[in-house]
Amino acid sequence: MRGLWLEGQAIRLRGDLAAPAPRPGEALVRVTLAGICNTDLELVRGYYPFTGVPGHEFVGRVESAPGAEEWQGRRVVGEINASCGQCPACTAGRRTHCERRTVLGIVNRNGAFAEYLTLPVENLHAVPDNLSDEAAVFTEPLAAALEIQEQVKIGPADRVVVVGDGKLGNLVAQTLALTGCVLTVIGRHRRKLALLAGRGIATGLPDSIRQGQADMAVDCTGNPEGFDLARAAVRPRGTLVLKSTYAGKQALDMSRIVVDEITLVGSRCGPFGPALALLAERRVDVAPLVDARFPLHDAVEAFDEAARPGVLKVLVEMEAAAKA
Amino acid sequence: MRGLWLEGQAIRLRGDLAAPAPRPGEALVRVTLAGICNTDLELVRGYYPFTGVPGHEFVGRVESAPGAEEWQGRRVVGEINASCGQCPACTAGRRTHCERRTVLGIVNRNGAFAEYLTLPVENLHAVPDNLSDEAAVFTEPLAAALEIQEQVKIGPADRVVVVGDGKLGNLVAQTLALTGCVLTVIGRHRRKLALLAGRGIATGLPDSIRQGQADMAVDCTGNPEGFDLARAAVRPRGTLVLKSTYAGKQALDMSRIVVDEITLVGSRCGPFGPALALLAERRVDVAPLVDARFPLHDAVEAFDEAARPGVLKVLVEMEAAAKA
Repeated sequence: MRGLWLEGQAIRLRGDLAAPAPRPGEALVRVTLAGICNTDLELVRGYYPFTGVPGHEFVGRVESAPGAEEWQGRRVVGEINASCGQCPACTAGRRTHCERRTVLGIVNRNGAFAEYLTLPVENLHAVPDNLSDEAAVFTEPLAAALEIQEQVKIGPADRVVVVGDGKLGNLVAQTLALTGCVLTVIGRHRRKLALLAGRGIATGLPDSIRQGQADMAVDCTGNPEGFDLARAAVRPRGTLVLKSTYAGKQALDMSRIVVDEITLVGSRCGPFGPALALLAERRVDVAPLVDARFPLHDAVEAFDEAARPGVLKVLVEMEAAAKA
Repeated sequence: MRGLWLEGQAIRLRGDLAAPAPRPGEALVRVTLAGICNTDLELVRGYYPFTGVPGHEFVGRVESAPGAEEWQGRRVVGEINASCGQCPACTAGRRTHCERRTVLGIVNRNGAFAEYLTLPVENLHAVPDNLSDEAAVFTEPLAAALEIQEQVKIGPADRVVVVGDGKLGNLVAQTLALTGCVLTVIGRHRRKLALLAGRGIATGLPDSIRQGQADMAVDCTGNPEGFDLARAAVRPRGTLVLKSTYAGKQALDMSRIVVDEITLVGSRCGPFGPALALLAERRVDVAPLVDARFPLHDAVEAFDEAARPGVLKVLVEMEAAAKA
């Protein structure tokens, strides 16, 4: 099959990849559409070691599911952590933290920028008929945004600042807005802030942050400047959610964390069910986030485009797969 | 009056200090005994800018309390944050985070290594008669240890690792042991670990830490090695409490915090009432922590002694004050 291949810090399109064979309990999924995430860009930059097919945001159709034939032909999205079900983390209910997990397109499992992928059947979620592929492909990042609310109780009395107006910051802001909290998004891009303002969300430039203005701040930038802005926005005894991956070590003033008794919360993958429901109910708008679509044979260019400053979501279509 | 004076990074004994005058709502306290904390040592090292009399762990006797004469002559300890009662932090109930606070011996208020100090009457706690000065002087650090339990729910099912066997680590361990949690203290000093083992607390050297063994870890070292050990001990979705002050910026791998969804909790001052009760009920043993006592006129030597590796609590006696 054809697919994108990452090795070292180079990606290239290959036509000689073996189509994956589902192991017991797994389904073979023909990928329809996949999204490029910042984590993919960081994999290419070498921030994590991974050799294989990247990609973890996708929508596709089940080609075969031995032993679970009811899934065959269904349009699906899939949770990206494949867990063992038996380690202490799994038995304690923390399956996304399975000690032996593979992660689609990130850790020891080929991902979505290819014609086919495999995932455990238990990871699959059927996509409602009224939901387009273009919306369903946002299920994974939207679920990640919702993880914040799995971890921290947020209500209408809470003043929340989101730092970062990119594709993750946008989804985080849209989901937090649903809590009724007093929300402000801080960003640097007029166009991206306008998308949020268009949904009635207050926005501001970095210099508008007032020290301690927020009960909670979410850093969606993954860079030290964003962390510092979010840190400055949080009041003493407030909560600072780290929603983005950080490259390398950060030089942080931990004394201020202690003196102000700040709680830092690392936040990763979240619940797919609620994410699909929000998309199906049109309570989150993802269409304006799509800046470009590329066919699989131009996937390397798609990565270049996604890495350009200011670009939001870039999608890759496996059109050739559909013809195969 | 006589007192220790910190200016730049030099401390010296002065005999020409003006005795403080209590402002409205404040009491004048004649200091009996004061303890040297690591924060005091860090002030001398210049980690925080402070000019004045250091010292925030004390027991003393109220000399005068205009408008609150019922306090006169009482033996007291005192909460160290003097708050305004009117700022947003105060009115929200976070008085230790008052935006205009002074902090005894740390921020804009002369401290306890002198014959007299002043504090708001509302900061004072009467010392039960059955509690010695030598025990009561530990109220402030014991309260700081108890702050952890104000912030994080800990029970008998929780596996907890305390990193650091110094005076703060010891108090943190003794208070955590009262929760019934499965507790291990990691340290490097045979004598200090033996103090804990003598109270039935499991101890180990740093190389005994197993990755992810704990639901919660508390770093009481304030150094990057201690942080890394505590971080390694915490399982995914576990809690890492930062209980010590950190000098300068720390180079931290925040990606692991995100990927493992760790919660970091900065922890500072805690409740005096429960600390006094634990001391009065002899549920915490502080006597073995006292390594040396110095009279005020040798207070500079006391600081040198407290800074020596392996030394636990050093106390300073204001004996001359008693004679004054």
